Amino acid sequence: MAHAPGADFILMAESKPLLSLDGDPMAAEALLREVFGIVVDEIIRKGTSASEKVCEWREPEELKQLLDLELRSPGESQEQILERCRAVIRYSVKTCHPHFFNQLFSGLDPHALAGRIITESLNTSQYTYEIAPVFVLMEEEVLKKLRALVGWSSGDGVFCPGGSISNMYAVNLARYQRYPDCKRRGLRALPPLALFTSMECHYSIMKGAAFLGLGTDSVRVVKADERGKMIPEDLERQINLAEAEGLCRDLRAGLDPEGGDLVGQLKEEPADPDFLCPPRADSVTWNPHKLLTAGLQCSALLLRDTSNLLKRCHGSQASYLFQQDKFYDVALDTGDKVVQCGRRVDCLKLWLMWKAQGGQGLERRIDQAFTLARYLVKEMKKREGFELVMEVAPVLKERMVKEGSMMIGYQPHGTRGNFFRMVMANPALTQADMDFLLNELERLGQDL
Amino acid sequence: MAHAPGADFILMAESKPLLSLDGDPMAAEALLREVFGIVVDEIIRKGTSASEKVCEWREPEELKQLLDLELRSPGESQEQILERCRAVIRYSVKTCHPHFFNQLFSGLDPHALAGRIITESLNTSQYTYEIAPVFVLMEEEVLKKLRALVGWSSGDGVFCPGGSISNMYAVNLARYQRYPDCKRRGLRALPPLALFTSMECHYSIMKGAAFLGLGTDSVRVVKADERGKMIPEDLERQINLAEAEGLCRDLRAGLDPEGGDLVGQLKEEPADPDFLCPPRADSVTWNPHKLLTAGLQCSALLLRDTSNLLKRCHGSQASYLFQQDKFYDVALDTGDKVVQCGRRVDCLKLWLMWKAQGGQGLERRIDQAFTLARYLVKEMKKREGFELVMEVAPVLKERMVKEGSMMIGYQPHGTRGNFFRMVMANPALTQADMDFLLNELERLGQDL
Repeated sequence: MAHAPGADFILMAESKPLLSLDGDPMAAEALLREVFGIVVDEIIRKGTSASEKVCEWREPEELKQLLDLELRSPGESQEQILERCRAVIRYSVKTCHPHFFNQLFSGLDPHALAGRIITESLNTSQYTYEIAPVFVLMEEEVLKKLRALVGWSSGDGVFCPGGSISNMYAVNLARYQRYPDCKRRGLRALPPLALFTSMECHYSIMKGAAFLGLGTDSVRVVKADERGKMIPEDLERQINLAEAEGLCRDLRAGLDPEGGDLVGQLKEEPADPDFLCPPRADSVTWNPHKLLTAGLQCSALLLRDTSNLLKRCHGSQASYLFQQDKFYDVALDTGDKVVQCGRRVDCLKLWLMWKAQGGQGLERRIDQAFTLARYLVKEMKKREGFELVMEVAPVLKERMVKEGSMMIGYQPHGTRGNFFRMVMANPALTQADMDFLLNELERLGQDL
Repeated sequence: MAHAPGADFILMAESKPLLSLDGDPMAAEALLREVFGIVVDEIIRKGTSASEKVCEWREPEELKQLLDLELRSPGESQEQILERCRAVIRYSVKTCHPHFFNQLFSGLDPHALAGRIITESLNTSQYTYEIAPVFVLMEEEVLKKLRALVGWSSGDGVFCPGGSISNMYAVNLARYQRYPDCKRRGLRALPPLALFTSMECHYSIMKGAAFLGLGTDSVRVVKADERGKMIPEDLERQINLAEAEGLCRDLRAGLDPEGGDLVGQLKEEPADPDFLCPPRADSVTWNPHKLLTAGLQCSALLLRDTSNLLKRCHGSQASYLFQQDKFYDVALDTGDKVVQCGRRVDCLKLWLMWKAQGGQGLERRIDQAFTLARYLVKEMKKREGFELVMEVAPVLKERMVKEGSMMIGYQPHGTRGNFFRMVMANPALTQADMDFLLNELERLGQDL
């Protein structure tokens, strides 16, 4: 099935596909076998090997030259294309490498990857039962399971393109639930609103406030304690402040339909560290592409709502997709729950991994991550020279990336300066990797 | 490398990964080889074969039973997992099948799929040069090329999770460009706005108006002519109407910073059918996952802007990602251009396919799609019995899906009733497939 260079095009004939690979599953298969072989060698074997580099650093201008990115009019031979695949992999960061601690996603779960390869090969959209029968039912089941773990026996939900958009959904749903008029008449028809959030919240709350038309000024940041828990007294203060400024008159009612005292309830809430979700939350954003290693992207918005809020808030009944004269129950056409039209299938990778590992297996992985985190802290305390020096982190980072030995993210936090932010998500990590990390940080910084 | 059922877990030992496949690239490889074999047999070979079914229809309740979707505590053996992969594929619609005309995406481009498999295996996020060096540069190059085809020699852009979100970006950017205060102070600080769109617009404009806080009432739908082009006189009427209602006082200035006469310009615009983009557009949403068969999702928002509007509008400078004390040019950290945090890599599949086909190859594919569309119309005119009978489409649709012989979408349009909406995106299509389609429609409807 060799594909001769320069012979990419076959002259058009009646009833023949135009390009050599179009409509030729044998040629497609041959190409994909080669690419799969490269993926196995370069990512699954070498990419996960501690003796290989995490990244092959190049300055941007040099990398542009090496990759020859320009798109031209003539096509290229299969040989050239395979070489391009190798180059893309060579200069990409190996997020599956045991010394990649840089982001909240890392590692390579083979079952999740298998799910992703099948998803990409089936290439369908998650909007109707008609063209995604398996995935409509599967998404429902996976969301049900995630809700059960949060503590809800009923509810709704949807997979979104990332946690930030999940959070925006949550804010949009909250405002629609309280002020359904907003959908038709917009924010100008509503009283001024305020959005209370913890100082530890993700920056998507700010981005969402701007995107949803609320404006970042409407975000009121509430102080958190040492453990990151919102301080109820500060929330109370912020609410009073906002009310004095004429904002959010209906807030208490909006937050608490039964007329209870939200701040009072928060004060009494148990400080249980295993408490996954505050009992009064209406929605939870959960990103299984992080610690659960399902692969980017896999972000679930979970709702306690059973009143079809998602569809009422986002639905528009597009006639070319959501015909009402279909031959099956159109409640299965979940596409109108979202603001997207086409939507990727994000449930299969998580479902397949979960089937393979079982709930038990996923639980043990997380326990293992905590065990390693405790080990790292213990070992770090034993060593001299590990203390917070804010100028050091950027220097060590540059050195590790240019050598390609390791990747860890750093950041300032509150009044604290730059520190390394260790992520233990990769289920393949061992104590040896923790020891490597400490030794490597010492080595990289020995002259500082 | 067989993976004995019931032996999924290995007891934890110091410095050993927890689960049998975690940190075992040989076992991962063995699993993935098996899955890849299934993908080749069931999707690439059988899925694209005209002699196989497009779909294997099952009623939802029956399908739930067949799939055994429930997620349990114990894990499953490799054999069971492979059987699950086969079942998922068996009951999924084969969008790569030559008789799948149901959606604007179809076909299977092997180079694009190769790009998708590499993307999934590398599993990184498109937000910083640090962790996506290849893809930050590649996205820039692909967007530049797409802009050039639209007719812009400079500009900006970004890949979004689907065309609907690209359209929302465009609306949000327009409002920020005119009223930068909106980001901080929200819509309530602005004069009332109106959004003028064609009656032929995508339903995401309505969804976006609601999500962005404008409200669907702010959307003013302008009549279009027989060719789908907005009628300038009706736009003028709608603008006058909105102004009379107190909306959009600054609209003329907002749309046209040079103070020209937009409606007048629209009237004089050439009715050239090859005109890809009106010369006065500021942004274009382009979905290469449709006719270009790059795979879901691949949606580019293209901008003529060179003032860093994207970053100014969406940026929030999260300190843990976009550190300003980095050792490289932080302008390469494009993640702050978007409202997402983690963002999938959507450029590689398009880039690799483009490299393989060349601009020439992609052009010929599109020419071929138009050739086949003309052929289909010509052949249809030759046959009796092909006329618009609105009750027939849902019945034919049910029959074709339950037999699995073919899939075509249907919809009403304006005052016209249900009609079949033929999509010719699959580059592997031939005249024989058009003949099949006509014969099959006759066969399915012969008793009606």
